[in-house]
Amino acid sequence: MPVNYTPPLPEQLLPVPGVALGTAPARIKGWSRDDLLLVSLAQGTRAAGVFTRNRFCAAPVTVCREHLAARRPVRALVVNAGNANAGTGAAGIAAARAVCSAVGEIIGCSTEEVLPFSTGVIMEPLPVQRVIAALPACRSALAEANWTAAARTIMTTDTVPKAASRRVRADGVELTVTGIAKGAGMIAPNMATLLTFVATDAPIAHELLDELVREIADESFNRITIDGDTSTNDSFVLLATRQAQIAPIERRSDRRLGPVREAIAGVAVELAQAIVRDGEGATKFITIVVEGGRDDAESDRVARSIAHSPLVKTAFFASDPNLGRILCAIGNAGIDDLDPNRVSFWLDEVAVVAEGARGASYREEDGKRVMTKPEIAVRVALGRGHASSKLWTCDLSHDYVSINADYRS
Amino acid sequence: MPVNYTPPLPEQLLPVPGVALGTAPARIKGWSRDDLLLVSLAQGTRAAGVFTRNRFCAAPVTVCREHLAARRPVRALVVNAGNANAGTGAAGIAAARAVCSAVGEIIGCSTEEVLPFSTGVIMEPLPVQRVIAALPACRSALAEANWTAAARTIMTTDTVPKAASRRVRADGVELTVTGIAKGAGMIAPNMATLLTFVATDAPIAHELLDELVREIADESFNRITIDGDTSTNDSFVLLATRQAQIAPIERRSDRRLGPVREAIAGVAVELAQAIVRDGEGATKFITIVVEGGRDDAESDRVARSIAHSPLVKTAFFASDPNLGRILCAIGNAGIDDLDPNRVSFWLDEVAVVAEGARGASYREEDGKRVMTKPEIAVRVALGRGHASSKLWTCDLSHDYVSINADYRS
Repeated sequence: MPVNYTPPLPEQLLPVPGVALGTAPARIKGWSRDDLLLVSLAQGTRAAGVFTRNRFCAAPVTVCREHLAARRPVRALVVNAGNANAGTGAAGIAAARAVCSAVGEIIGCSTEEVLPFSTGVIMEPLPVQRVIAALPACRSALAEANWTAAARTIMTTDTVPKAASRRVRADGVELTVTGIAKGAGMIAPNMATLLTFVATDAPIAHELLDELVREIADESFNRITIDGDTSTNDSFVLLATRQAQIAPIERRSDRRLGPVREAIAGVAVELAQAIVRDGEGATKFITIVVEGGRDDAESDRVARSIAHSPLVKTAFFASDPNLGRILCAIGNAGIDDLDPNRVSFWLDEVAVVAEGARGASYREEDGKRVMTKPEIAVRVALGRGHASSKLWTCDLSHDYVSINADYRS
Repeated sequence: MPVNYTPPLPEQLLPVPGVALGTAPARIKGWSRDDLLLVSLAQGTRAAGVFTRNRFCAAPVTVCREHLAARRPVRALVVNAGNANAGTGAAGIAAARAVCSAVGEIIGCSTEEVLPFSTGVIMEPLPVQRVIAALPACRSALAEANWTAAARTIMTTDTVPKAASRRVRADGVELTVTGIAKGAGMIAPNMATLLTFVATDAPIAHELLDELVREIADESFNRITIDGDTSTNDSFVLLATRQAQIAPIERRSDRRLGPVREAIAGVAVELAQAIVRDGEGATKFITIVVEGGRDDAESDRVARSIAHSPLVKTAFFASDPNLGRILCAIGNAGIDDLDPNRVSFWLDEVAVVAEGARGASYREEDGKRVMTKPEIAVRVALGRGHASSKLWTCDLSHDYVSINADYRS
């Protein structure tokens, strides 16, 4: 059960003109559910993406990067769940290309106009023939209203589909932003979701789209962590179908960009938070804010040290205000000249540590009261400067161990 | 139940001339068992220590560092379990000094000749009066044969006491090395056990002892990790009572140093491994060797990336050869120019990945066979150079979560 997250109803997800989605069962892992998603995109659709920094990036990530580097329009996405096509060497690359080529034939475009994505088990060969055999069924199912089915199709250990929509006006025309995401484990720093696709019909220029995808990844998916493991397949792709009948948005100074950017960022943050809320075994949603750092990097290091500490995460699971563990994690962040006597932290509004020691007014029952809540904010003040960093994470529960000890079986 | 570790019987622990140990119940946490240890040391005993690099180091660590910095002989150690005296500010320092002063009065030495240690809950005030009140009972119990009782007294979530002994000959005289350790959680990089005390009667010069404690910490305690959390209280102290009737060992070139050093390192490695074998919830003992790095630091980074990945750790717990998770962890180690196509790894003798992809001869049942064993070796070849690094770690089980969700209650 996700923490305070209910997926939107299918009718709450706004179709994006120029985007049609079709799903089918390819039986990649022996599931009977749909596990293959085909997205067809209107001619002229521009795409920009950011991908995992894991050195063992998956074959589809390599192929996506190549296809995007050509800076041509994109006509289709193809996404399978159940197999990551990672750690599969040259055969994996050939498999990803074969799938793109088959999609090109079905959609009527070149191999290079297709972006492939995979999620699931690492180091197993992708059953290419089964994927290709299911493509005609995906094509038959193509429809603009299929966002929820698409979000459901790309799930692995996710317990709910994740999707979000925004509508915004520009030049008197309604623009739409809709996105889906999946991911519940192997979620960590450096581009942090398995798969996210956000589409808009706004006519955003390619260069601007490249900038936006990076900036918005930093504000959303790069701000979440579940278990500190950066996956081999992480991909966040932003699509602009340019179907809206307004003049192109080509410059940062364009006054119409503000609301459109806000809508895209809003969808991305909502999806990023949904991933944490549905984190493997999560029972708590934790916001960590670190203030008073000398620079963003050191603030971020402290936030991640707290978010990745198994002892802090199990204390949240237990609703136990064993708050020395947070102090310990701050001390472990690798800031050599940190002065403990200037560090303070709060749990929600409760001042736990003031200038390096237990707060004078701190009472255990106040800590306990906050720790039992499903949503908790940790705020740390380092007393060194003015940089701050924010991170969203979850606790570490028995179910995390169960899910990851049983995932393949 | 520790993984393949049975504590030595009391009669197997060799007394070290010049070291007497006494324990008593101070009821620091309301336990009825002994939780306070006093160690008295012969006049002229030299001590050297390495301590946590956590910036929130505990008050006793600060006081230990001060007392050792005076470079005087040490006459006593005092160790309590149940309260870490960490995150306690100036009051914590005063408490640690008050305990040392009381020990000085009882033993007949100055406050500065006493080294204090604490382990347990962080951010609770140390009940100084209860500690001081129990000191006379510790003194009455002082005896050379009390090593097992001492090891038991300093336990927190440890399930067994950890101790080891070696005997070595020099100049026709038998020298003894005996040590104890505790620690089962919050065990990680950078001086990695809560508390370890190793004593020898060898007459090692102070400067040499300083060098040895650092070198041996790097070969033993700095090579283990349970959960990646470096505690606030980690301390490894090496004591030389100098009671053996041989000429002082003052230089590295002294041919007698080799066997003595080997005995001390042997005790340290045995204790370090015992801590992992008794790691919180541990069911597997994992040795990770990373070879072919450009330097030690990058080899170590890869080893720790594997050892700290919750996904790798849960796969070990499940005996599931979900080995793509190891590949993923290698790719996440932060080596920007790592060439995946040169990376190979083995589970025991089974070649799992050869040059970046699944090994041609690899069969799932071979991986499964190794994964079900209680002791597993992971060997990684990076194909970049000649530096290597070794790490000992354990799996992540339901019991880890249970222990850390319940520790304080």
